[in-house]
Amino acid sequence: MSKPLILISNDDGYQAKGLHELIQAFRAVAELYVVAPDGGRSGASCSIHMFSTVRCDLICSEPDLTMYKCSGSPTDCVKLGIHKLLPRTPDLVIGGINHGENSASCVHYSGTMGVVMEGAMKNIPSIGFSLCSDKSDADFAPVLPYVLKITNTVLQKGLLPWTCLNVNFPNLPIYRGVKVCRQAKAVWTNEWEERTHPNGFDKYYWMIGDYVHLEPEAEDTDLWALTHGYVSITPTQVDMTAYLQKETMADWNFGV
Amino acid sequence: MSKPLILISNDDGYQAKGLHELIQAFRAVAELYVVAPDGGRSGASCSIHMFSTVRCDLICSEPDLTMYKCSGSPTDCVKLGIHKLLPRTPDLVIGGINHGENSASCVHYSGTMGVVMEGAMKNIPSIGFSLCSDKSDADFAPVLPYVLKITNTVLQKGLLPWTCLNVNFPNLPIYRGVKVCRQAKAVWTNEWEERTHPNGFDKYYWMIGDYVHLEPEAEDTDLWALTHGYVSITPTQVDMTAYLQKETMADWNFGV
Repeated sequence: MSKPLILISNDDGYQAKGLHELIQAFRAVAELYVVAPDGGRSGASCSIHMFSTVRCDLICSEPDLTMYKCSGSPTDCVKLGIHKLLPRTPDLVIGGINHGENSASCVHYSGTMGVVMEGAMKNIPSIGFSLCSDKSDADFAPVLPYVLKITNTVLQKGLLPWTCLNVNFPNLPIYRGVKVCRQAKAVWTNEWEERTHPNGFDKYYWMIGDYVHLEPEAEDTDLWALTHGYVSITPTQVDMTAYLQKETMADWNFGV
Repeated sequence: MSKPLILISNDDGYQAKGLHELIQAFRAVAELYVVAPDGGRSGASCSIHMFSTVRCDLICSEPDLTMYKCSGSPTDCVKLGIHKLLPRTPDLVIGGINHGENSASCVHYSGTMGVVMEGAMKNIPSIGFSLCSDKSDADFAPVLPYVLKITNTVLQKGLLPWTCLNVNFPNLPIYRGVKVCRQAKAVWTNEWEERTHPNGFDKYYWMIGDYVHLEPEAEDTDLWALTHGYVSITPTQVDMTAYLQKETMADWNFGV
């Protein structure tokens, strides 16, 4: 059987350790195309460049490894990869390995998941991997066997259409196991720290904040898994329709 | 009863016509706080600024209307409004009126829906309004009575927790009615046009693309409603868990 074709991107940029650990892990078993941002894009979500142009430069062309850096967002990278750079539709899209957690509602802000949602929107099995450590020299060694196992399982079994996986690893040397979870309810509070410019009067803001888990007792969430030493796998879908709300509105009158 | 406090933002910037039409429509009936980007942010999705600072300048302070422009993303605007600028938690968050369609999977790229999802993540009833015209001088007159009707209905009846509405208007002088819909399945193809720099060799890309509706016969989708002359209301939720995929994975083995 020929090697699977995998498109890899991230939101930490083409030089990030997590990306290169991923490349090394798959190097022997897959044909890799890497299209990654030319710098950090944390918090890029599914953003795209509609009114400015995007550049893309080849930086590595070796057997089974082709790598580009791109001036766009993580989502732009996937779109460019699929529509312009890869020889065919990839068998898999992978985002990461992210330096930082992407659990619960943070999935909406995540550039890593921007990669993965774009893969899902193209109906390609897609997986995002994130380690709960923001450090640039984080230790990815405990993560890698699970990355390979989860990826191989998805390549064998596939995923439902328009569906992807959001995988998070606690920052621990060893895990208690793997849990398939739902997205937890959590909320950011106290999100801004106000500072004053050296001129003495202009104000500016740093995003900081506290992440409050709203259902810490619920054992089926990704946040529960991560805070209890488990790897979390949260199956995630493109369809955000609120079907229950839709039913509720059946008799609402919108006539004007 | 005191006037409702409404936080308004958008992704077309504080000078956009659609924003000012919204302000005029609500001026007499609500206390308005507008925190809008200082320029266009189309395609910003739920992006946030985590590693750079954000500025925010007061540009208007009148009875029942306070307006700021902000250097951040639409989502940053909402976060700043709620945590730093408003006197209390708003009764409603509104995004728009967007110059351009935000139906189907485009909800993931939309900065307008970045505003609205952030409101929903703070458990505030939130509504995004979008007109299917990209023109800066688009005619919003047919839209406004429906904007008021839908907003008043939501203020009266509320929305389920962590849920918001994505409302799109066809670019028509009159509508056949209003439909409560699900998010259609659609996909972008041919997404890039390659150009050459005047230097004769550097390549760059413009995002263009064709939007292909994958289920044009299904009458319960937002795309069907819009292409048949109806206003579409798509109830939309923060929880993206793919519950069906989660069930499918119950017996998958991830041991390493």
